[in-house]
Amino acid sequence: MRDFLPADKARRERVLGVIRGSYRSHGFDEIETPVVEDWARLNSGLGGDNEKLSFAVLRRGVTTEELQAATSPLELADLGLRFDLTVPLARFYASHRAELPAVFRAIQIAPVWRAERPQKGRYRQFVQCDIDILGEASTLAEAELITATLSTLDALGLEGASIRINDRRLLIGMLTGFGFTPEEHDSVLITIDKLDKVGQDGVIAELTSKGVTPSAVEALQGYFRTPRTMEFLPFGEKAIRKFLPAGADDTVVAELAGIGAAVAAAREAAAAARRAQAGESDPDAERDIPAQPDIPLTFDPFLVRGMGYYTGPIFEVAHPSVSYSLGGGGRYDGMIGRFLGSDVPAAGFSLGFERLVDLVEPAADDADGGVALVHDADLDPAALVALKAAVIETHARVRLVRRTKNVANLLDALKADGFTRFAFVDAATGPDNLGLRPLD
Amino acid sequence: MRDFLPADKARRERVLGVIRGSYRSHGFDEIETPVVEDWARLNSGLGGDNEKLSFAVLRRGVTTEELQAATSPLELADLGLRFDLTVPLARFYASHRAELPAVFRAIQIAPVWRAERPQKGRYRQFVQCDIDILGEASTLAEAELITATLSTLDALGLEGASIRINDRRLLIGMLTGFGFTPEEHDSVLITIDKLDKVGQDGVIAELTSKGVTPSAVEALQGYFRTPRTMEFLPFGEKAIRKFLPAGADDTVVAELAGIGAAVAAAREAAAAARRAQAGESDPDAERDIPAQPDIPLTFDPFLVRGMGYYTGPIFEVAHPSVSYSLGGGGRYDGMIGRFLGSDVPAAGFSLGFERLVDLVEPAADDADGGVALVHDADLDPAALVALKAAVIETHARVRLVRRTKNVANLLDALKADGFTRFAFVDAATGPDNLGLRPLD
Repeated sequence: MRDFLPADKARRERVLGVIRGSYRSHGFDEIETPVVEDWARLNSGLGGDNEKLSFAVLRRGVTTEELQAATSPLELADLGLRFDLTVPLARFYASHRAELPAVFRAIQIAPVWRAERPQKGRYRQFVQCDIDILGEASTLAEAELITATLSTLDALGLEGASIRINDRRLLIGMLTGFGFTPEEHDSVLITIDKLDKVGQDGVIAELTSKGVTPSAVEALQGYFRTPRTMEFLPFGEKAIRKFLPAGADDTVVAELAGIGAAVAAAREAAAAARRAQAGESDPDAERDIPAQPDIPLTFDPFLVRGMGYYTGPIFEVAHPSVSYSLGGGGRYDGMIGRFLGSDVPAAGFSLGFERLVDLVEPAADDADGGVALVHDADLDPAALVALKAAVIETHARVRLVRRTKNVANLLDALKADGFTRFAFVDAATGPDNLGLRPLD
Repeated sequence: MRDFLPADKARRERVLGVIRGSYRSHGFDEIETPVVEDWARLNSGLGGDNEKLSFAVLRRGVTTEELQAATSPLELADLGLRFDLTVPLARFYASHRAELPAVFRAIQIAPVWRAERPQKGRYRQFVQCDIDILGEASTLAEAELITATLSTLDALGLEGASIRINDRRLLIGMLTGFGFTPEEHDSVLITIDKLDKVGQDGVIAELTSKGVTPSAVEALQGYFRTPRTMEFLPFGEKAIRKFLPAGADDTVVAELAGIGAAVAAAREAAAAARRAQAGESDPDAERDIPAQPDIPLTFDPFLVRGMGYYTGPIFEVAHPSVSYSLGGGGRYDGMIGRFLGSDVPAAGFSLGFERLVDLVEPAADDADGGVALVHDADLDPAALVALKAAVIETHARVRLVRRTKNVANLLDALKADGFTRFAFVDAATGPDNLGLRPLD
């Protein structure tokens, strides 16, 4: 877990502000839940492997007798730090459904905790940015989630990011088509999930060593050997079928193609609106916005996503500069029902904030980064705070800074902290004779 | 612990945005620390009674053997949820001092946890807004903290709030003057801290029942009986002395009067700058800003503040509408040294966000609360997300809303959620024929 110093904290807040603003513009509403949930709820099987990584909070007032009677340390815990934002959302929705719209579009931007082994790029406390649509059974949910996420990546200035999409039902159909038994599916999916890391040969080797149905492994190997060209968006049903064994579910293929077409339509409509807006003020500006926008969405027949609760389309954000995904999500129609008793369709998209924040640099809001009033040590505090109070009325940010021997270092530090102007202050300085100078 | 629904969450974020922006304008920098700290550090005696309220996090990988060997449940914990932001700040400063300016002005806006019994207005997870100045030994620190806090309360539109100030050294001097022994001081202060709740007679009764030096209790009773008029700011040394037994420390009285004078000077300078600014554009507007601003700072000889770590001036925010304080703080010069080994002067001011947020209503940022596109259920998702994408380019916030039978209810809910315009969407609707109507 990390401390964030001022420059890091400011950068994180800027990035979060862009994400929050973009999702809000897409009609999502932010909510917040407590960082702890009931231990039993966190361990109800919905969190997959993440459950094993939860931090348990000791029950208050555990007595020494209870300690001695316990057969496992976890019996002493009644709360835990959340390991994701999906389990809390399901609990939140079950508690507050009557107060929420029929189709509820939620933003959650908040830290989660996992007891990971310390390693580069993995933290025990990290921020997730989730959007979810609860109560929408049609692919409108997936189309809105993907469109909002692509817009957000655009707003962050993250060029080159793309979203891969697949469907859990197609994956299962494909495994069945190759001849894997239903009992083998989970284990085979865990191996296929490593395709990006270990390659096709690695997958075949691992499946062989696992001892799953040999003819199915051979069929998969045959599939890998057949050359195919991935067609980019808008991908149609035909393009998807090329990547699937015969007999793939028509409805699912049509849904996936429909999501692709909707995302493409939204990107094109947004570009057209931007062109029209630009053209109103300046016909030349219109030409700078391409009529055919980038549609960075591709079908990936081997995209798995780790969590067991997905029931339909699944997606993941990739970026050429990093080998790991920047986020992902999918449809998880059965989950809310676990808390509510009756099923509610649900789909979500989560951005891994810690991975994103290092890749982007949104511009600071204001050019006026602030004024540093560099003063001698022996000035009257009343005169100093009065001067500062007057200057605040006309500048974004004002700091009193005691003058040190090495003024050059002091000014460098102020510049690094975002200040753009400074003044040397002595007993004769007032708001009208500040003598502001640029910090550069 | 509470869930926050969209309207509450939006209101909370608006209030936090005002607080963050105001403190930042006063030259403070925001930092962030992890929500958990080492259990031993949280229980090192710096947190006073709050230590007893900490939530302990179970050590990862505690074995059954360790469970059986443990003599107390807390031996199984290695981390805890922070109960305030001061202990984490001291730890942060000790870790990062070399990377921070000589005088470090910190903002921390973050949740803390206390295992309180559930009761009205008390939560187990709640947000604190702290500003601290580390490395400034002079009263400039207190003057800046109080000025920034008053500005922030102004920015929140909280009228009628005032700050009471006292000094731990004067309190001790007064108790000594009455004849209480040094061993009795802590206990007597705990009783005096209840003055607002139980009144003067209640304090005398409790002290009598505690059996502390009877002549000292009598002296305090005599003090209570002597009529005095509290003089408001700018309070001078003379006004302070009227409330203290003879022999009060001259230096401390002068410091406190100096803080009062500095805060008054800052308020007056800010008002003058606002008058000048207003006068530039419109001479009449100048008259609307009073030349003599409100200086809501009073000396309170019986202000105690609970925490044992205060060493000098202490302060508290009061508001006529509530019986509890909205925040407080003071100088705590010895504390950082506990972590760093060498003493660093420090003073801080903490606002209790949960208590403030119910009293204020900052205006929403934009008049364009957003556009709701109310659509029939059977429309093509691609057409809907394309329309939405086009409308987002010209409006702050756009939501697709499936039309329900009771349209009036639907529109009311959208209005409650902050939307200001809507359109009914069918297959023939495009961005150019939306037919937007006001939601009112």
